[in-house]
Amino acid sequence: MQTIDSLWPIFEAIQAETPLVQAITNYVTINDCANILLAGGASPAMCEASEEAYDFSFLSQALYINIGTLTKEQEEAMVRAAIGAKEKGIPVIVDPVGCAAIPRRVPFLEKLRDQGRIDVLKGNLSEIKALAGLQSQARGVDALDSDEDATELCQNLAKTWNCIVAITGRRDYISDGTQTVYIDNGTEMLTKITGAGCMLGALTAGYCGAQATQLFEATILAHLTMAIAGEHAAQDEKGYLPGAFRSHLMDYVYITKSKMLKDKAKIHWAHALT
Amino acid sequence: MQTIDSLWPIFEAIQAETPLVQAITNYVTINDCANILLAGGASPAMCEASEEAYDFSFLSQALYINIGTLTKEQEEAMVRAAIGAKEKGIPVIVDPVGCAAIPRRVPFLEKLRDQGRIDVLKGNLSEIKALAGLQSQARGVDALDSDEDATELCQNLAKTWNCIVAITGRRDYISDGTQTVYIDNGTEMLTKITGAGCMLGALTAGYCGAQATQLFEATILAHLTMAIAGEHAAQDEKGYLPGAFRSHLMDYVYITKSKMLKDKAKIHWAHALT
Amino acid sequence: MQTIDSLWPIFEAIQAETPLVQAITNYVTINDCANILLAGGASPAMCEASEEAYDFSFLSQALYINIGTLTKEQEEAMVRAAIGAKEKGIPVIVDPVGCAAIPRRVPFLEKLRDQGRIDVLKGNLSEIKALAGLQSQARGVDALDSDEDATELCQNLAKTWNCIVAITGRRDYISDGTQTVYIDNGTEMLTKITGAGCMLGALTAGYCGAQATQLFEATILAHLTMAIAGEHAAQDEKGYLPGAFRSHLMDYVYITKSKMLKDKAKIHWAHALT
Repeated sequence: MQTIDSLWPIFEAIQAETPLVQAITNYVTINDCANILLAGGASPAMCEASEEAYDFSFLSQALYINIGTLTKEQEEAMVRAAIGAKEKGIPVIVDPVGCAAIPRRVPFLEKLRDQGRIDVLKGNLSEIKALAGLQSQARGVDALDSDEDATELCQNLAKTWNCIVAITGRRDYISDGTQTVYIDNGTEMLTKITGAGCMLGALTAGYCGAQATQLFEATILAHLTMAIAGEHAAQDEKGYLPGAFRSHLMDYVYITKSKMLKDKAKIHWAHALT
Repeated sequence: MQTIDSLWPIFEAIQAETPLVQAITNYVTINDCANILLAGGASPAMCEASEEAYDFSFLSQALYINIGTLTKEQEEAMVRAAIGAKEKGIPVIVDPVGCAAIPRRVPFLEKLRDQGRIDVLKGNLSEIKALAGLQSQARGVDALDSDEDATELCQNLAKTWNCIVAITGRRDYISDGTQTVYIDNGTEMLTKITGAGCMLGALTAGYCGAQATQLFEATILAHLTMAIAGEHAAQDEKGYLPGAFRSHLMDYVYITKSKMLKDKAKIHWAHALT
Repeated sequence: MQTIDSLWPIFEAIQAETPLVQAITNYVTINDCANILLAGGASPAMCEASEEAYDFSFLSQALYINIGTLTKEQEEAMVRAAIGAKEKGIPVIVDPVGCAAIPRRVPFLEKLRDQGRIDVLKGNLSEIKALAGLQSQARGVDALDSDEDATELCQNLAKTWNCIVAITGRRDYISDGTQTVYIDNGTEMLTKITGAGCMLGALTAGYCGAQATQLFEATILAHLTMAIAGEHAAQDEKGYLPGAFRSHLMDYVYITKSKMLKDKAKIHWAHALT
């Protein structure tokens, strides 16, 4: 990725492909994830029965795994689907929800990576630190000392896990292990509803499914879309209230176009680290 | 059914009865299904624990089964509830989600039919073809050559399975094996949110629970209600956006009256096939 | 509790603490429960995997258990989490959904109480009667003869179970075994959407998590908040329709302040029974 204009072909791809995204995701926001995939132009399939998950991955263009409510059957299904995704060669996007607070989720994610595949990891700072083996506070302010530290963390985990890593927060960091970008868009309202992070993961899977050769760009585009749709939603009628904001957010993702993003994007390229 | 006026007694019955509908349905749209049942005047009970499903069917006026997320426990619960429904003699409405893409779901539905009962089957064209043993594309355009073909498919499956069959799409086909009607209402916005089909199935169960002697009419009425409520919702404020549309849809089902349907209904009687 | 002014410190506590509430709740309204906790100023964590539920209770300030969809894994997780809550000493708020219609849920709740702990029980009249061992109609009008009878039921169960008991209905009764208050706020629209009761239980858990030394006050405050937010939501734009009402309800809980409650509260102290 050199310029923001390299992102727009993904919009054309998603319109041409309507990628089918298999999602195994938490029950809290499963409806929001399906709706955001539709709003973004993809086709959601929450196929999570353990007996069906492997076969279904062969019909899909991407697999989204979100470990928010990790029931026994979901756990089985996730591993089987990730193995299927590896065999078929489709991208796997993972949201490591709660892995900082719940230690057993870290080895589970390593298992997904080793037996199946992980192409994009998207989490908050605590979660990414936990996956990198660093101490973290599971809750509360947990800032790194500097952008350099965050960039290094993001880039190093991307290298170690051999995937795209995104750290979400007031500033988002996205790295493929070589390049890293920052995104400074968004609104605090995204923290006033449940599921903004889950929806972002799902949308990332939609975009990745449309253009599997551009996973870094697809991940950046999904983060820009959600953050800027959020900015618009918060400024729309009663958008400072969570019920109204939530409805607007879906609407703005639905109408997102390259121009809307280009006008608002606060995206920066990090200096290369060595 | 001879004329559209034969449908309206169901509205009176649902108001008099507030039928209790037991639903075992996918986790993606389980909230939407409960809300649409309330909006339509029924009382939802998502009783799906495998140890409780059989007993609960004896308290209910109808049973709705939707196999979208078919966990092991749901599978068990569905069979038990369908057996209970057979013993008590209440109608069972089934949405065969995904049975075209996931072959093992077809024998599962046959098991529900054989051990329990199925009174109404409502699916899209691919799903109904899969149940009829025909080849189908699980995704994408999958048109039949003519109305005559669709009518024949619908009517034949209704005879073979001995139940009402509804095929949803741009045109809906509903047959009891003898008569078939077409409905040409609806809006593309119903495909832009998740759960329109699931909600239609749930509402069908609500109407069937109110008037178990008029299952054909109840099924037609539910299809008309959802389609015409959708038309209104799409034309209401920002109804061309999915977040707003979704909220309006619930509202229009809530205020649906016979007059609203009669003014807008595009319903046709198919010529009898021999 | 002597006057309504004793309730307001809970608002300050929730703002200062942002209590983490672990919730194991039904899949129908799990999203609504998470959103209402956020709207009310708490932090929801729907941690319900049976292997994780015990450990997670040690991170939480309150535990909410709602038995609406009682899958096998949820059943296990609830018991483990309640045991963890007892060991850590955090309040457990229970919504005994369906225990009047489904007899096996009564001994399950007794098990939760005996092996773990229950600090607040919030149910409708049928459910509370079932827990008190009284006959009840699971559905339909099921009035007690007088306020005195309801007060006695509420107060006696509070003594027997050694917890706060709340009976919801047109009039809410809340007792700690010694004092009982009535609340006459609310709107019929709360019965037109699914989840109003579940959300009330979740919000109670949020307030209890903020101020564990004032569980009686926290329970009263949650009931007042939901009922009065409902009144405002029903009078807001299109609030007489369920889709719009639902969105407004979340918004009014989000902006609830002591003044809004004080101006509208219809709260009464029952005469002491002997």
